[in-house]
Amino acid sequence: MKLSLLNKLREVNPVILNLSNFVTVQDVANGLNALGASPIMSEEIAETDEMVKICNAVALNLGAFTQAQITHLRAMGKQANQAHKPVVLDPVAVAAITYRKQVALELLNQFQVNVIRGNAGEIAALAGFDWQAHGIDAGGGSSDLTKIAQVAAQKFHCTILLSGATDIITDGQRVTKVSNGTPLFATHVGSGDMLSSIVAAFLAVADGDDFQAAAVAALVFACIGELTASQEKKMGSGTFIMRLLDQLQFTTIEQITKIARYREVETDDKCE
Amino acid sequence: MKLSLLNKLREVNPVILNLSNFVTVQDVANGLNALGASPIMSEEIAETDEMVKICNAVALNLGAFTQAQITHLRAMGKQANQAHKPVVLDPVAVAAITYRKQVALELLNQFQVNVIRGNAGEIAALAGFDWQAHGIDAGGGSSDLTKIAQVAAQKFHCTILLSGATDIITDGQRVTKVSNGTPLFATHVGSGDMLSSIVAAFLAVADGDDFQAAAVAALVFACIGELTASQEKKMGSGTFIMRLLDQLQFTTIEQITKIARYREVETDDKCE
Amino acid sequence: MKLSLLNKLREVNPVILNLSNFVTVQDVANGLNALGASPIMSEEIAETDEMVKICNAVALNLGAFTQAQITHLRAMGKQANQAHKPVVLDPVAVAAITYRKQVALELLNQFQVNVIRGNAGEIAALAGFDWQAHGIDAGGGSSDLTKIAQVAAQKFHCTILLSGATDIITDGQRVTKVSNGTPLFATHVGSGDMLSSIVAAFLAVADGDDFQAAAVAALVFACIGELTASQEKKMGSGTFIMRLLDQLQFTTIEQITKIARYREVETDDKCE
Repeated sequence: MKLSLLNKLREVNPVILNLSNFVTVQDVANGLNALGASPIMSEEIAETDEMVKICNAVALNLGAFTQAQITHLRAMGKQANQAHKPVVLDPVAVAAITYRKQVALELLNQFQVNVIRGNAGEIAALAGFDWQAHGIDAGGGSSDLTKIAQVAAQKFHCTILLSGATDIITDGQRVTKVSNGTPLFATHVGSGDMLSSIVAAFLAVADGDDFQAAAVAALVFACIGELTASQEKKMGSGTFIMRLLDQLQFTTIEQITKIARYREVETDDKCE
Repeated sequence: MKLSLLNKLREVNPVILNLSNFVTVQDVANGLNALGASPIMSEEIAETDEMVKICNAVALNLGAFTQAQITHLRAMGKQANQAHKPVVLDPVAVAAITYRKQVALELLNQFQVNVIRGNAGEIAALAGFDWQAHGIDAGGGSSDLTKIAQVAAQKFHCTILLSGATDIITDGQRVTKVSNGTPLFATHVGSGDMLSSIVAAFLAVADGDDFQAAAVAALVFACIGELTASQEKKMGSGTFIMRLLDQLQFTTIEQITKIARYREVETDDKCE
Repeated sequence: MKLSLLNKLREVNPVILNLSNFVTVQDVANGLNALGASPIMSEEIAETDEMVKICNAVALNLGAFTQAQITHLRAMGKQANQAHKPVVLDPVAVAAITYRKQVALELLNQFQVNVIRGNAGEIAALAGFDWQAHGIDAGGGSSDLTKIAQVAAQKFHCTILLSGATDIITDGQRVTKVSNGTPLFATHVGSGDMLSSIVAAFLAVADGDDFQAAAVAALVFACIGELTASQEKKMGSGTFIMRLLDQLQFTTIEQITKIARYREVETDDKCE
């Protein structure tokens, strides 16, 4: 995996435009900043054109949006497509709320995204699988997660990053599975939102290789979480988020390489 | 007091729907999550029906709201009543701002709440007492706080949780007073908002016993704050919030029982 | 420098009304609270009059605003002028986004501010200088920063606090330069927003001496940041923000005096 993208990100310091979840917006901004990107947030459609112009990638988060924000999301997505800026979509809670799923599917019809980052329930909902969801969490279910991710990738012509105990990254054909991580991610609201924006930061420096960018982002974030959690025997969610920001700032490629556990799966696993 | 509700909460993992104060929304979400509930936030009225359906209780926070949000608050409260989901109202700053008091009183007329959680100034303002307020803080005053809480409970046919150095919980007749806590709660903006949403989490598992749920929530939160503060001689507000989240996650019923200081007051204290 | 204002602030506990950047609002509220002020936030124009009445100073932040918020900003600025409450403006990202610069210039035409607090790029943009900006960061450039600040102060008839490695405070004639600080401020999104609201807190207790208030605020905040950063050899942004809140609460005038590095520049440096 092309882990050198992490150093490139820190050199280039790409500007990431976020249409954010108001619940987690400060953590996302701080996470991008700590890793080495430059976050910019917007709530106003009148500045969309300019913002898309100065940014290097766009992260669209569907958490807690209003109807005004849907108009804004649409404008930002279309503008990003025109300006050839890569787009990440985070379909928060589309498994739990039908209304959100409808909005997400409409948006995915109106502009092209490069990566969708969600949990199993969210990706399954978009792909059209039946899946149980519980609040904003992933919920349980028994289908083959790799297949779900591949179907979603093929349906939306993009890369899927399905987050979980094992992260699954696929462009519909190729599949990478990342086994690093920590259960502490689940104790902190906003870990997923942070990862989605970090995917955008890697897209900004990956020269069009979306699959590579998503896989590296997943591995880097999972390893940084694992390194953070390993500092204490029994870490709480408050300590975790503080230390996670520190670790995003200081973790080197060498540290990641040392603990990385991932598998690039052969094509015979692929969706028929 | 039925402290076993804490274990039930952690088993059931109830979904708490929050119409939140944008100032403190992430802390509230993280606090609910750390304690063992599943937070969901909304800003969009079009998803209200679905959200109320999947949730187990609703927490409505009047901090920093817009007129669009008032419409949303009203819809959510009415919907919760129809679906028999318990509702907590946090009347932020109604003592300081007449406009907020008017809005709060209108809302309390339009749907039924199970618990109102506020400081002395806020509860007094809703109950119709004259009380000094200073910014978002409780302010000073000399009336009998228990009487104020009882009058408010009778006026709105609900349970009142009046937060302060001593928390007063009353359904208008019965009164419980909790003496645990820490002055550090006042150093961190959002402690009260977090408690209000935690009350909703206890309502979700209390089988209709609102008074019990509010009393247990107050005791659990006060003791967790006290345990957090006791870790260091001179703790600052930044350290406090980080450790409070950790403590919400790890504190057991046994630890709470060991330090709990509360009094269930006899009915001769009640409001005439 | 009149550092005694810090003790006055902590005695008076002024109410600071913030029209806030949603990205950093909780940090700003906690920062004000930790230092000894009483934050109040608003999103609703219907409560503007009352809020301005009860507050002691107003902080207007242009980060991530909507068109509804511009109307609100205008109303709040005009109301503050009528009620003779001091006003701070933080022109977030006006160097990067022309739309924001236009809005900021219009607002500065419609009401009088006491202090503008921004980075070099933002102050240069408002003053009409050409300056490079990168995302929300200050960007680089080679003009004389003191001159830029003085021109801006004269143009808007107010005090300018230009933040950077060296903070420059000027009323157009007098200039104070503060050399304290830490690069860690740049690692945490919202340091600048926090400083802007803290300037408002000092204006609230400075008896009309805006220049003094801005200089003291800059020195106090820079020294508190420096003291925070000095606690560890290699502090990350997560640890920094937690400890910064603690330090805002506990730092004394004596500690600041011991490390203060500032220069009150003679008038021959002034802008011709």
